[in-house]
Amino acid sequence: MSDITTDQAEQVLEAAIKAAGEVGCRMNVAIVDAGGNLKAFRRMDGAWLGSIDISIRKARTSRQFDMESGDLGGLSQPGGPLYQIEVSNGGLITFPGGVPLRNGSGEVIGAIGVSGDTVENDRHVAVAGAKVLQSA
Amino acid sequence: MSDITTDQAEQVLEAAIKAAGEVGCRMNVAIVDAGGNLKAFRRMDGAWLGSIDISIRKARTSRQFDMESGDLGGLSQPGGPLYQIEVSNGGLITFPGGVPLRNGSGEVIGAIGVSGDTVENDRHVAVAGAKVLQSA
Amino acid sequence: MSDITTDQAEQVLEAAIKAAGEVGCRMNVAIVDAGGNLKAFRRMDGAWLGSIDISIRKARTSRQFDMESGDLGGLSQPGGPLYQIEVSNGGLITFPGGVPLRNGSGEVIGAIGVSGDTVENDRHVAVAGAKVLQSA
Amino acid sequence: MSDITTDQAEQVLEAAIKAAGEVGCRMNVAIVDAGGNLKAFRRMDGAWLGSIDISIRKARTSRQFDMESGDLGGLSQPGGPLYQIEVSNGGLITFPGGVPLRNGSGEVIGAIGVSGDTVENDRHVAVAGAKVLQSA
Repeated sequence: MSDITTDQAEQVLEAAIKAAGEVGCRMNVAIVDAGGNLKAFRRMDGAWLGSIDISIRKARTSRQFDMESGDLGGLSQPGGPLYQIEVSNGGLITFPGGVPLRNGSGEVIGAIGVSGDTVENDRHVAVAGAKVLQSA
Repeated sequence: MSDITTDQAEQVLEAAIKAAGEVGCRMNVAIVDAGGNLKAFRRMDGAWLGSIDISIRKARTSRQFDMESGDLGGLSQPGGPLYQIEVSNGGLITFPGGVPLRNGSGEVIGAIGVSGDTVENDRHVAVAGAKVLQSA
Repeated sequence: MSDITTDQAEQVLEAAIKAAGEVGCRMNVAIVDAGGNLKAFRRMDGAWLGSIDISIRKARTSRQFDMESGDLGGLSQPGGPLYQIEVSNGGLITFPGGVPLRNGSGEVIGAIGVSGDTVENDRHVAVAGAKVLQSA
Repeated sequence: MSDITTDQAEQVLEAAIKAAGEVGCRMNVAIVDAGGNLKAFRRMDGAWLGSIDISIRKARTSRQFDMESGDLGGLSQPGGPLYQIEVSNGGLITFPGGVPLRNGSGEVIGAIGVSGDTVENDRHVAVAGAKVLQSA
């Protein structure tokens, strides 16, 4: 198993914080490793307190299923195949903002979760963070 | 960061209790500080026991996202952008009755949560409490 | 079952806050009713954040066993008859500062829990609060 | 109430990571704000996974009682005045490694928690992080 390093986690985190600044959002940014365990976290000044937990859950959810958190949410609606999956694993977050982190070979080595604004902006910032590892 | 004082919390609480009396409701009223921690609480005689926890969660939810709890609920319905956000943070309450507390400068310094009757009355009482700080 | 009223809870709370001021301590004060449910709470400015939870648990512990929290602690030490009782009921606090609230007839109608200073001062303030109901 | 900024949290975190490197330890480092909420976190490569949670709890414990986590532990031993305080607040950590963060005026604006090695080294690294804010 390849695993994200602290250096890589910091690169992802910095890129996400930079992207958050560009769109004028105050974000909570969490990085988990290949085991789904917290690796790095930063809360920008004034970011929502409730988004600490959500950013970490988005990252964990994304790594636990190796897909974007929002993709899982498409399957968990009433009538959907994964209805109420959110109660598992101590609480999943299935709306956008959690994105798998892949290395140059396409292997998932962790995930990023972003929370603090609209889900569109949350996802935008998470994707900006994730991209860093693929160009490296 | 400005934070609510004990005196301010008591003023808010008294105003809410007064408003509850005027509409003939028995309420649980909780005040949290800027960090989301409980600052003051009162349960009126005969108020629902299950509303103790709900009033505290409404207040915390409101401070954690700096918006009314009911506004968050509008976004967390099936198909909505924040579907199932309630599983985060140890359990959010996203129906009306949680209102941010702002000082004269508009800064959020805490939140009030009210529970014990219809959500319309809960919100009415919470808003009545919150108003006190803006005229002070 | 006799139960504490909101008015009585406020009297107890005010008496405790006054006693805290006299000994120069910043306290968290919690009152639970005959059912062990939170009835009133106040945190003095600058009081320890960790004492919010402890004051509530002291009050609940005291009512759950109709004795002072510290008396239970005397029985829960290693080798004692109630060793590790603290893990029950979602977490008991068994050091001093929780005191049953009795009405004029000696019936337990609730309990007070105080936390924020030494356990001696915590207990002193809790006892001062509890006395109000016995002279009334 | 003064609160730690993201910039300050990063300075503390960097100083702690540097000190950890000097003593050859792999640490988890957590920073909480004045409200006890997570502000920044970093796990060094190879650091214990079980220390993620411990570092965060050490930081929170330290802010919740405005003292070093180890000082609380000195009071919570069998026979001590705060025996079993660890069951409160969802779980406290009362051995060394949690240190309050004070600004130049001596005000507590958050706390740092370090976990990953002996408690002596954990505390050494936490103190190294905390010092940064007092010289700034």
